[in-house]
Amino acid sequence: MFDAVWTNLHAATMADDALGIIEDAAIAVNGDTIAWVGPRAALPGPGAVTHDMGGAWVLPGLVDCHTHLVFGSDRAAEYEMRLAGATYEELSRAGGGILSTVRATRAADEATLLEAALPRLDGLLAEGVTTVEIKSGYGLDSANEAKQLRVARELGRRRAVTIVTSLLAAHAVPPEYAGRRADYARHVAETIIPEVAAEGLADAVDAFADSIGFTNEETGWVFAAAARAGLPVKLHADQLTDQDGAAFSAAHGALSADHLERSNAAGLAEMARAGTVAVLLPGATFTLRETAHPDVPAMRAAGVRMAVSTDMNPGSSPARSLLLMTNMACALFRMTVAEALLGVTRHAAAALGLHDRGVLAVGRRADMAFYRINRPADLVYWMGTNPCIGRVVGGA
Amino acid sequence: MFDAVWTNLHAATMADDALGIIEDAAIAVNGDTIAWVGPRAALPGPGAVTHDMGGAWVLPGLVDCHTHLVFGSDRAAEYEMRLAGATYEELSRAGGGILSTVRATRAADEATLLEAALPRLDGLLAEGVTTVEIKSGYGLDSANEAKQLRVARELGRRRAVTIVTSLLAAHAVPPEYAGRRADYARHVAETIIPEVAAEGLADAVDAFADSIGFTNEETGWVFAAAARAGLPVKLHADQLTDQDGAAFSAAHGALSADHLERSNAAGLAEMARAGTVAVLLPGATFTLRETAHPDVPAMRAAGVRMAVSTDMNPGSSPARSLLLMTNMACALFRMTVAEALLGVTRHAAAALGLHDRGVLAVGRRADMAFYRINRPADLVYWMGTNPCIGRVVGGA
Ligand SMILES: [Zn+2]
Ligand SMILES: [Zn+2]
Repeated sequence: MFDAVWTNLHAATMADDALGIIEDAAIAVNGDTIAWVGPRAALPGPGAVTHDMGGAWVLPGLVDCHTHLVFGSDRAAEYEMRLAGATYEELSRAGGGILSTVRATRAADEATLLEAALPRLDGLLAEGVTTVEIKSGYGLDSANEAKQLRVARELGRRRAVTIVTSLLAAHAVPPEYAGRRADYARHVAETIIPEVAAEGLADAVDAFADSIGFTNEETGWVFAAAARAGLPVKLHADQLTDQDGAAFSAAHGALSADHLERSNAAGLAEMARAGTVAVLLPGATFTLRETAHPDVPAMRAAGVRMAVSTDMNPGSSPARSLLLMTNMACALFRMTVAEALLGVTRHAAAALGLHDRGVLAVGRRADMAFYRINRPADLVYWMGTNPCIGRVVGGA
Repeated sequence: MFDAVWTNLHAATMADDALGIIEDAAIAVNGDTIAWVGPRAALPGPGAVTHDMGGAWVLPGLVDCHTHLVFGSDRAAEYEMRLAGATYEELSRAGGGILSTVRATRAADEATLLEAALPRLDGLLAEGVTTVEIKSGYGLDSANEAKQLRVARELGRRRAVTIVTSLLAAHAVPPEYAGRRADYARHVAETIIPEVAAEGLADAVDAFADSIGFTNEETGWVFAAAARAGLPVKLHADQLTDQDGAAFSAAHGALSADHLERSNAAGLAEMARAGTVAVLLPGATFTLRETAHPDVPAMRAAGVRMAVSTDMNPGSSPARSLLLMTNMACALFRMTVAEALLGVTRHAAAALGLHDRGVLAVGRRADMAFYRINRPADLVYWMGTNPCIGRVVGGA
């Protein structure tokens, strides 16, 4: 006797690269764990409760593995001005750019940040997302980075979702360090990381290594501080310039390297060897009209696992739908439907170092998303619609 | 005393090219018609009913002026095969392409088509759409074109929405006319248009003039038949080749010319003179990875009104969200926020020859959409979210 059984459904378990499809499946759960999954006819016993899903499809609960969804204010006004032809100078006189988000985030209290973030999170959950990574990076000092991550943790208490946090103090240089980038990087490594880590607020450390971000040397200081704090690392890599971020991430055993628009093939091969996941962010590519695209054929050839994420943020990727990102990943990067769906389940979980989810298999967490669709490809093919009819998070 | 008043809201009336914004507005309605709109402080009298909108924004009900949303089956499986690298031959052996949609649409009865179309329509309505154009074009004979349009009319009875129909028999050459394109065009002009028009099923006649569609000469026969039936015309123009479709549309006094990816500037100037609206379809551009874009600067310079639509169809634009199309129009075509929003209200209504809507003004239909947003730009800026909190259709 299982605690609960879901039946009369088709499963895309993600257990293999063809999506691990089981038509007319059943899934049994004990507590918060999957106890059995297979063809309905082979179900070994009944459930205390049985849910008839009326022919729906079930996937592992989706994982959005790269978001900046806690922030003060948004940048719609700046977006409007830019499209109307405002110059860079006019925008910056109007207070635009990432530092406007830093100002607004520093000025906001936790309650305000939480209230603004909840609808952004709720939109993801409504699509079947059960795990969300949230970065800091708009505080840029110990108190404000910690504030962002406390709000992220609180989101996880307010909703049925796993929140994974990344400390991204090395996102940009704050105004008080203007012209002193290396000094700020040292401050991140010597002060912000140890202080925020001591509060238990960070599950990982992230950095933005790029021509407008930090050098690899500076990022190395940040990663060394992460190692001292016992935290895994990930990297915004090679978005605007090929800074050898792919190889650098691999050399540091990063969980993931994200963006990779300009990474070289040798670096991607290093990632495959190190097991570093490539996180692809088509919403940013689309919004920035970026013509350099991540080298998906090279990733495929090297055997790099590819994840897909919203990069939800107020500047370069105001994307609120993970399903839309699977469509954009196919249209822009020529990923296949299977790659896109693995990219928001199994490979996205791997990008967060989570081995207990992303696949429907015995012993994994019972995180599931149900969809009224004819086949898994429908999730990717349609743009701007949400066929999710329910979620199960940790068996509940 | 008005029948009803909506108050405590901000209005983007679309009455001018800066969106006709009235902060802290009120709108009064008598019957199905707007009786007053202006600043709340100036509201001349009370309503029998008053709706406090709690600081929301109101726009004219949105108009999706170019859809193919009634069809049998979809093409997700073909989409998946294409991304997986299937050749044209493999796809066509698997029964792909537009003729697969024709086969499925012919095989489906009205109830089946209706049931499949309702969720597509409902997704639009949930975003604040109150008027939807629906084309035939997957029947390609009198009985099946009429069937599609009867389903479209029935959709308008099932939901609170105005459905405007376009007879698009000249969409493709059906299998029974293979190799006899001109014969089929004559059949459309001499038989299908008069027969379907006699049933009162068509509000306009559309055609696909292109290298893979019909020549301008053939389209001329179709347009002449429309004139005999007393129906206005519109055209799928210059999508894949510059066939001078913009000038051709203008010369025939078309309500709109749609696509226009490859139109020349002289033709666009003719459209401005004739009052023909340009309907831009970024979902198709995105899905087809089209690099030729409609010449928005030339349209702007010539004074062509620009509308934006989903082109919702199972092949080239599986787009289910009109708001997403406003974002894509800005990202891909560099439209401004104001142009994008006029494109789904005032100019989209003009593309359908409807002068009673698309603007919040005295005497217009009381079709309204309410949004929980900070400013109209939010509707365009965010991708994949729906802030609509309610609609009023014809005052109700
Ligand atoms: Zn990011
Ligand atoms: Zn069309």
